[in-house]
Amino acid sequence: MPELRQNFFTKEWVIIATDRAKRPEDMVVHHPAKNVAHYVPTCPFCPGNESLTPPEVLRADGAGGNGWKIRVIPNKFSALARDQQPDRTIHRSRRTINGFGVHDVIVETPDHAQVMALMTDNEVVDLLRVYKARYSALSLDPRIAHITIFKNHGRDAGTSLEHPHSQLVATPVISAQVRQRFHEALRHYDDFGICMFCQVIEEEIAEKDRIVLLTDNFVAMELFASPAPFSTHIYPRRHMANFGDITEPELADLGRVLRAVLGKLYHGLENPDFNFTIRTAPAECVGVKYFHWYLSVIPRLTRVAGFELGSGMFINTVLPEAAAEFLRKVKIEQATGQGA
Amino acid sequence: MPELRQNFFTKEWVIIATDRAKRPEDMVVHHPAKNVAHYVPTCPFCPGNESLTPPEVLRADGAGGNGWKIRVIPNKFSALARDQQPDRTIHRSRRTINGFGVHDVIVETPDHAQVMALMTDNEVVDLLRVYKARYSALSLDPRIAHITIFKNHGRDAGTSLEHPHSQLVATPVISAQVRQRFHEALRHYDDFGICMFCQVIEEEIAEKDRIVLLTDNFVAMELFASPAPFSTHIYPRRHMANFGDITEPELADLGRVLRAVLGKLYHGLENPDFNFTIRTAPAECVGVKYFHWYLSVIPRLTRVAGFELGSGMFINTVLPEAAAEFLRKVKIEQATGQGA
Repeated sequence: MPELRQNFFTKEWVIIATDRAKRPEDMVVHHPAKNVAHYVPTCPFCPGNESLTPPEVLRADGAGGNGWKIRVIPNKFSALARDQQPDRTIHRSRRTINGFGVHDVIVETPDHAQVMALMTDNEVVDLLRVYKARYSALSLDPRIAHITIFKNHGRDAGTSLEHPHSQLVATPVISAQVRQRFHEALRHYDDFGICMFCQVIEEEIAEKDRIVLLTDNFVAMELFASPAPFSTHIYPRRHMANFGDITEPELADLGRVLRAVLGKLYHGLENPDFNFTIRTAPAECVGVKYFHWYLSVIPRLTRVAGFELGSGMFINTVLPEAAAEFLRKVKIEQATGQGA
Repeated sequence: MPELRQNFFTKEWVIIATDRAKRPEDMVVHHPAKNVAHYVPTCPFCPGNESLTPPEVLRADGAGGNGWKIRVIPNKFSALARDQQPDRTIHRSRRTINGFGVHDVIVETPDHAQVMALMTDNEVVDLLRVYKARYSALSLDPRIAHITIFKNHGRDAGTSLEHPHSQLVATPVISAQVRQRFHEALRHYDDFGICMFCQVIEEEIAEKDRIVLLTDNFVAMELFASPAPFSTHIYPRRHMANFGDITEPELADLGRVLRAVLGKLYHGLENPDFNFTIRTAPAECVGVKYFHWYLSVIPRLTRVAGFELGSGMFINTVLPEAAAEFLRKVKIEQATGQGA
């Protein structure tokens, strides 16, 4: 018997299609291991080719002055333009803002063949530290309303560039989708006097069924109304509206948790294409009591079709409880927290 | 210089990335012409194999009693179950409804090798008539809150079944996305006393730049803030909230317009994968003054990546005005209306 479940945060319904449910094992993608070179002479992100990219805006140096380990550079094919004043026009139904914005590329490692799931915990922590530095710096720019940090891994996740990289896009507007989620969270806070995310985190930790990994500071879990198989959310356990509020010890813990989740997906599903994104309160809403930032990891195992496009509802063919159990059992090299 | 444009209906922002803009010609997919058989012995939708599907719920007979030309059957791999009473449970943050719903497959033609873009106008009109019959019948069921009619064409659009078919999903809930669009439309009506869709249709017809095709009853156009290249909307020109309100002469006109739009995409972009979906007011809101139904055709030429997933904003690399001009110029066999 299928079931409709309502996403508590967005109020969107998801069809959990148990009648055509797949076992988690059926979603394994078997991406053939490619023989990727550690250095590619034509790759603009490989060491020695720095002149092929715009000048870097931030770098983390390797140990002992041994070159860089992470570089942040303006995206050469930026969707938006820096060094503008956002300028709005309104003409009847047509509303525009000139394309001011920041579009960074974060080169995660000098090693062309590296995969984030196989990095060391410390390498992932270094990367998160760079995310935070860039996030915090851009948050101070009064022209910027919202910042999205994300990673695309693999062709089905929308990337064609092999060299490991993440991206950051800062826009002069808050998207309608972010506004809408914010509005739902505020409404819950007004009704019940509690952050809706804090409430769900507490319930899910007590319930256990959908938990993938639990540490002192973070919980990784499948949502009760997860829209897609193995879509995994990582929440800070203490209330925190803004990614920029993360402390140094929390960053270290998040690095371990993120690497463990990516490792479980990598080994369990055999290197699926995936996206991850950090969903945070807009920069102007630091410290609000009703929103809670999180990191969302979305393996791209299924395709959005006409029903999803036409209704906004998703059909998930893997029970979230089965996905969580499957991921809990996947062994990764370094044990991380209780759930590993 | 890139530009942010706001979708007037959803209030979502779209980045029109003119700096990395592609010419419409660059989006041609060159799908190799496959040698598809007109009859496949193992295909459950081919004539003679009717026993491989559940019993049909509706059929349109061929001329002279010569077998069927369209069949509507329950989806054998239905995401939802008929013959239930929708039953809601609420337990803290977890809300469910048992999986009541209707999931129909509409087999569009006995010919396995047919493509909707190459059907005759009359064949498309017959199909729309079946959509309407099924839509109207299900609208009367008090357990059903909303009906989504859609088509998936090609692998990137989420189908693996070759035999031409559309689908209908009727759910016991109105999705949050539909509610949200409804809410925006109502707000506009309350503010200005006019349907926001009627306003945009009038503006766009006067402006001409984004019109693909114009007939007495329908307009096909690219949105000013179109989220994806060649995404084309077909609106009835008279105010009509509900797809079920379409009259017989309007159905005939819509068949010509839909076939012309699909033909232009087929010939102009060389058989792209696409979805289409009918967005209509929920069944319970027949006759409202503030919502306007339409048919949305979405070629699947690009992939949704981390930025879109994380922000809800889209990046469109083809100017909507250039896409409309390109489609206006594509010749199809049968001239249809002013724009063809």
